[in-house]
Amino acid sequence: MDTEPRTDYEALFATRAIPEGAPAMDLSHKGDGPPPIDFSYGLPDPKSFPVKELIEATDRVLEREGEQALQYGPTRGHDGLLQVLVDKLQREEGIATDKKNLMLTNGASQAIELLCHIFVNPGDTVIVEGPSFIGALDTMQRLGAIPVQVDLDDEGMRMDALASTLEQLERERRRPKFIYTMPNFHNPGAVTMPLSRRHELLGLAREHSVMIVEDDAYRELCYEGEPLPSLYELDQRGLVVRTGTFSKILAAGMRIGWVLGPARVLSKMLLFKFDTGTNHFACRVAAEYCREHLQSHIVRLRDIYREKRNAMLLALDEHVGEFARWTKPQGGFYVWMELADGVDASRLTLEARREGVAYLSGSRFYVGGGHENTIRLSFSYLSIEEINEGVRRLGKAIKASATH
Amino acid sequence: MDTEPRTDYEALFATRAIPEGAPAMDLSHKGDGPPPIDFSYGLPDPKSFPVKELIEATDRVLEREGEQALQYGPTRGHDGLLQVLVDKLQREEGIATDKKNLMLTNGASQAIELLCHIFVNPGDTVIVEGPSFIGALDTMQRLGAIPVQVDLDDEGMRMDALASTLEQLERERRRPKFIYTMPNFHNPGAVTMPLSRRHELLGLAREHSVMIVEDDAYRELCYEGEPLPSLYELDQRGLVVRTGTFSKILAAGMRIGWVLGPARVLSKMLLFKFDTGTNHFACRVAAEYCREHLQSHIVRLRDIYREKRNAMLLALDEHVGEFARWTKPQGGFYVWMELADGVDASRLTLEARREGVAYLSGSRFYVGGGHENTIRLSFSYLSIEEINEGVRRLGKAIKASATH
Repeated sequence: MDTEPRTDYEALFATRAIPEGAPAMDLSHKGDGPPPIDFSYGLPDPKSFPVKELIEATDRVLEREGEQALQYGPTRGHDGLLQVLVDKLQREEGIATDKKNLMLTNGASQAIELLCHIFVNPGDTVIVEGPSFIGALDTMQRLGAIPVQVDLDDEGMRMDALASTLEQLERERRRPKFIYTMPNFHNPGAVTMPLSRRHELLGLAREHSVMIVEDDAYRELCYEGEPLPSLYELDQRGLVVRTGTFSKILAAGMRIGWVLGPARVLSKMLLFKFDTGTNHFACRVAAEYCREHLQSHIVRLRDIYREKRNAMLLALDEHVGEFARWTKPQGGFYVWMELADGVDASRLTLEARREGVAYLSGSRFYVGGGHENTIRLSFSYLSIEEINEGVRRLGKAIKASATH
Repeated sequence: MDTEPRTDYEALFATRAIPEGAPAMDLSHKGDGPPPIDFSYGLPDPKSFPVKELIEATDRVLEREGEQALQYGPTRGHDGLLQVLVDKLQREEGIATDKKNLMLTNGASQAIELLCHIFVNPGDTVIVEGPSFIGALDTMQRLGAIPVQVDLDDEGMRMDALASTLEQLERERRRPKFIYTMPNFHNPGAVTMPLSRRHELLGLAREHSVMIVEDDAYRELCYEGEPLPSLYELDQRGLVVRTGTFSKILAAGMRIGWVLGPARVLSKMLLFKFDTGTNHFACRVAAEYCREHLQSHIVRLRDIYREKRNAMLLALDEHVGEFARWTKPQGGFYVWMELADGVDASRLTLEARREGVAYLSGSRFYVGGGHENTIRLSFSYLSIEEINEGVRRLGKAIKASATH
């Protein structure tokens, strides 16, 4: 006789209804044959990592303050790295701020997550750009938000479209919890919002009493002059929460981001930072490195990525020409491309695979897809030689996909 | 004329209704005078951190694989550290597992967080021990769960109380999402569940088709023989999700935890790991360190903490005696104390401050408080001299608080 109780495993593993999100980043190569030249992901240039200086910084930190670096620390994050940010914001942007307006996060993505935790009930509306960053869309959707997309043009989020979206939501009595925007070197749109439009955006946000979440991940990687003032700086009234990261300027593998905003918003975000603070060991190493080297390292990174961008744009002119139009990014990691009429995007998928080149379809950056005639190309990870060869392959694939 | 739109800042900052949680850990000393001898928090012994070996491990990792260590990586976590865990589980516990049953998290606390994300809708019930770990209670409550506490006795969670709780919930048609338990060296209860009761717990969970979340943070810090088989090992049917951590055996500041469980649970947890993987830099350093040193380091840690525990128990016998009863922990960081009748707990708060000794009131480990005659003492951080002096002061304070 079987006296074992019958366990209902299906009931046991029944999760709650998890909202749909975006497909995850997949860095692995699956097919046969050699891996393609891959423009898919915005990975930093691996040759640019300051390995030697980070070894020195780690050694100094562990020798001098190992007992603190390896111990629990404050949930807001390591004080020394917060001070690095206070000093950097003052020096580079003239922003006088305070550690109570800052916290460290596990990549900038955790800042979006924490903002959703404190503001979003399931079904709440947030306004985002179309296209927008996959990771942010995924986070917002999984945590129950309904993102409403507002079109981009060559100067960023369209203000006429934003105004009519805000009015429409007001008529529907849907109060948007925030407007998520990337004014600099947009991912994936690769456009930058001019100063006048930044003021317009702030005006609309004030008028409709909506908070702005400003994602400024690529700010420092500016290849023409200096970046424009951030929305956070232009506002100065507590309307803007700004996120930043060390992933693009120091080491993505350290997963250190940060958020700058009103103290009363940050104090609530801290309630959901259950990990008791972002890796204090890595943050102390980062702080030690940054105090001595970050400024000159950023100058060097600008040179590295500017050269890649220039090579990318030259190669596109040569190999793609009139078969598509694309943005000329002033900074960041991406080119956004719209295929010409008559280029068959689904055929391009096959031709690109055959040629050995990969990219992300632009449809992934839109809630609900569509826009199949757009693609995102990242030039940050590849060498100049790979960029040239990759764009040559891409051009060949695009031309083979042209139906007339 | 003021043409500025009027911004409704109160509406703008109106967060959603955030559920109450637990008070945060506060490591700062606020009063005047010298800081107290502080038994409050379960901080690892700072002298035990393997600083020299971690410098060597970091240097080797960055020299050999800097380009990978500083780059984005898989969301599940660094493959090399997952392999360290696979090998460790096989070697120490005879558990044959696979990387698809494991993932790395930002401390074990993130594992609890991810489990709540996939299982808990606001208002859902979870079963926890009373008392239970503040951090887990806080996470569950903030994420909308209603924890129902089941009393501990000297052998861990009481099975008669669990059975009647499960039956009561069934009558109320409240389906508990999981049972959260710490079978080894309970925090804060400092008791260990014997083998027979582990089998009973699994039987009840099977009978009622409820998942078990086994928090085994202190497993390796066992001061009498070897730890008992985990619920995960005893079950082998996919009923148990087990969490572990490197915080107590390597470095709390690295914030590296892990979770072991059915692949179909982990694949859903990954959907909520928006940080794109736990600090890959720190995880590679940890893997490099662990391959060579972890086994012998754990032997050393057992000696260090066993000596502290012994000192603690001796001092309690000498200085507190019949004014309280307390647990004799077989492992972990804590002693749980119940004051004798006639010792006034609120007076003790004042007397302890006057004597210069600090601890956590046991009431913080209960949902809704109560149990003011209990306190948790952690002996992990303090030196033997501090333990002796701290218990002397505590004993003096307790005696001064006895009303008869």
